[in-house]
Amino acid sequence: MQEELSEFYNIFTETKKDIESFMAMLDPVINNAKDDHERLYYHHIYEEEEQRLSRLAELIPLLETFLAGQGGSFSPSNNIFNRLLQELNLEKFGLHNFVEHLDLALFQFKDAERQAKLTEMRGTNHTSYQFVKEKLARINEQFDTGYADPHAHHDEHGDHLNHHAHSTPVQPVQPKTKRSFTVGSLISK
Amino acid sequence: MQEELSEFYNIFTETKKDIESFMAMLDPVINNAKDDHERLYYHHIYEEEEQRLSRLAELIPLLETFLAGQGGSFSPSNNIFNRLLQELNLEKFGLHNFVEHLDLALFQFKDAERQAKLTEMRGTNHTSYQFVKEKLARINEQFDTGYADPHAHHDEHGDHLNHHAHSTPVQPVQPKTKRSFTVGSLISK
Repeated sequence: MQEELSEFYNIFTETKKDIESFMAMLDPVINNAKDDHERLYYHHIYEEEEQRLSRLAELIPLLETFLAGQGGSFSPSNNIFNRLLQELNLEKFGLHNFVEHLDLALFQFKDAERQAKLTEMRGTNHTSYQFVKEKLARINEQFDTGYADPHAHHDEHGDHLNHHAHSTPVQPVQPKTKRSFTVGSLISK
Repeated sequence: MQEELSEFYNIFTETKKDIESFMAMLDPVINNAKDDHERLYYHHIYEEEEQRLSRLAELIPLLETFLAGQGGSFSPSNNIFNRLLQELNLEKFGLHNFVEHLDLALFQFKDAERQAKLTEMRGTNHTSYQFVKEKLARINEQFDTGYADPHAHHDEHGDHLNHHAHSTPVQPVQPKTKRSFTVGSLISK
């Protein structure tokens, strides 16, 4: 577990730098938007990454606490560990959404400089997303958290850019099981 | 506090229905997208709302637990209450982002039927966002959680559609203070 946490730490400190680069790239685009629609579009993505940045400002110190051996046991009876798992599950989606923000930007920023930077960040963060997804699946299984991935049905179709045809009408998704820590499990602690 | 929780419960059960309506509206648009860029764009928004739906599937029962008087005290020494506040703070952003998804859709779905439905949902959810934001600001203050809103500097400029000019280059935001429950405050429990 200590090894995974160390890798998570590297991943989230790296993606934090990439968010900052991406926000700096979006800033002039927002300022120079040709109309309200374009401005809202980029500003919206900017704000979502800003929200993620402020969540990472909590997750990273929490990872540091565990890496320093001060987080307590890796056990569902430890509320700080529960908090860590909950935040990691959330930031897995943060990475996923970031990759898609980068993909959307790749469709629009066609100059060589931004294409190169976006492609590089896209590669790194996609790898990070896959890593976090796989490790968390194992950790959630190990601790029997009952976590159900609301994206699993998308991932079955492979990479989202190539195969996300909805061949049949999609029903709004209801999680099959409770996500992670139920109220009951918290009450019993 | 019981009264606010009751209003939060109504807001989040209502917005859950609206997410489902919005996802049903996006589904044929994804299926009939003219190219990969358009498909990714709508599919991305669809997935973000899907993620929110699965978080609400946890938050709503948690609110029910407190409304039934089974959540314990409204106190930072109660981990379930902390969990509730943490999820509410997150879903405040969920509402904010949903309003922007609706605004983006209003720029693109121009037929009368969808304009009417989107406008109605936009109104309701914007009011809900404002309510949740104000109530949470007071609750966070009351419990001295040290929560800093990463959006405050946007909201200062008023409604995001009309006034989000970045007149000076925006630096990536670093939260001014820790968001809510520090590791220390959890450890001490």
